[in-house]
Amino acid sequence: MMPGKVWLVGAGPGAPDLLTVRALRLLHQADIVFHDALVDPDIVAIATQAECIAVGKRCGRHSTAQRFINKRLVDAASMHRTVVRLKGGDPMLFGRAQEEIDALAQAGIEVEVVPGITAALAASADALRSLTARGLSRSVTFVTPRVGAGEDPSNWVHAAAAADTAVIYMASHDAEAIGAALIAAGRPASTPVALIEDASLASRQVLPSTLATLGTTARRLHGGPALIVVGENFGAVAARVALDGTRGEAPRAGVSPGVSASVAGSARRRA
Amino acid sequence: MMPGKVWLVGAGPGAPDLLTVRALRLLHQADIVFHDALVDPDIVAIATQAECIAVGKRCGRHSTAQRFINKRLVDAASMHRTVVRLKGGDPMLFGRAQEEIDALAQAGIEVEVVPGITAALAASADALRSLTARGLSRSVTFVTPRVGAGEDPSNWVHAAAAADTAVIYMASHDAEAIGAALIAAGRPASTPVALIEDASLASRQVLPSTLATLGTTARRLHGGPALIVVGENFGAVAARVALDGTRGEAPRAGVSPGVSASVAGSARRRA
Repeated sequence: MMPGKVWLVGAGPGAPDLLTVRALRLLHQADIVFHDALVDPDIVAIATQAECIAVGKRCGRHSTAQRFINKRLVDAASMHRTVVRLKGGDPMLFGRAQEEIDALAQAGIEVEVVPGITAALAASADALRSLTARGLSRSVTFVTPRVGAGEDPSNWVHAAAAADTAVIYMASHDAEAIGAALIAAGRPASTPVALIEDASLASRQVLPSTLATLGTTARRLHGGPALIVVGENFGAVAARVALDGTRGEAPRAGVSPGVSASVAGSARRRA
Repeated sequence: MMPGKVWLVGAGPGAPDLLTVRALRLLHQADIVFHDALVDPDIVAIATQAECIAVGKRCGRHSTAQRFINKRLVDAASMHRTVVRLKGGDPMLFGRAQEEIDALAQAGIEVEVVPGITAALAASADALRSLTARGLSRSVTFVTPRVGAGEDPSNWVHAAAAADTAVIYMASHDAEAIGAALIAAGRPASTPVALIEDASLASRQVLPSTLATLGTTARRLHGGPALIVVGENFGAVAARVALDGTRGEAPRAGVSPGVSASVAGSARRRA
């Protein structure tokens, strides 16, 4: 039997309507879907014709599990026409995609990647603060402080400190240490920071902070996926808090007008 | 009359099916669309009910034009319910979004941002090379060497040189100088580079190069939007060339299988 094709598909930040049109079509067509455990169930449920299998996490520390995923993808392509590997955010950022692409290519299986909205872009949209901004930021770095075997743990600090804006993925549990590391690398303790949790979801929070107060602010997170965004353009960020403390249930309607009003206020104060 | 709402919407890298589902819905609903001149006409044409107006470019040097765009958005919101400002890629990266958000907020107009697939993610997908990769890259920086008034022209080099992977936007005309600047900043002349033009489109090209040979390789570009991606994980990139030299007309089908085969070959050579 001719081997099928494997599509590495970005599931985006969480909101189902931030899937791309191409991703939506592939989920409709898929025979089998291997999805990250963290992908929203509402997105997995789009693949009504497919067998759906939760695999792996995204913290870069499960190499045995990764080899097992690679093997399952290769095996699935021998039995199915359309195999979808669904990854949170974008496959090519912190997603272990290269290992899967190389394993499939070595097995002679066709593979294609469908990009997705990475969390940093959704977080920036939620905060109404752009990652680059005229006169304030012409460079933005995405890093993770999680360290794989044999990697230099201090490397990420250098890259994050050198950019005008730094977005730190998978960082909420180490927020205080991250603030301290960036201060030690030369960024002022007063540098503005936003912690953004559950980007794009109704439960999202945007918490303004600084490098010095990052550890304290992080205690207000509710345990969802969170990003730390560091940079001058995040200095006027308007707080947007999931008031009831319940993830995934806060209504979206009613949040936006208030945020717009408070952003209008802060923009006036800046001007 | 109650003011309308302005949506800053990412049009993605070019392929219409890389729009998000939310962007597609807003284009269908829009009363008026202000779009970057570079957004694909097939995407603008989705807004069948809207008046569509081409505005501005995206090179960061037209501040008078930007103020005029801001004013048009404010004016449009007083006359229309759903105003879409459609920007290439993602609005929050190199898109002058903050100036528009602040102008709208100061005028008391509600604004929301819909993220889009930025060109770097589409280029990475086209090259089948991930921006981060276990053991090779834990940080990726997006920069542009274009300089606004009063900005330090050397700042971007520092940020790009500090990251494991650097993606340089709006750079194809200065490729030789960019290679030289990164070598002067301490990156080896042999550092792998991919030039990726027309990411996501049928006319796309993926050209392997190095920092030392970047200027020569750039002469093979056809004049479309191009990114320079610098980093060790782009060392085994398979060339993907738009053979007929005609932008926007090369058939997509028939390209992928050959690329997969050559990637399979290069993966074997690496292993």
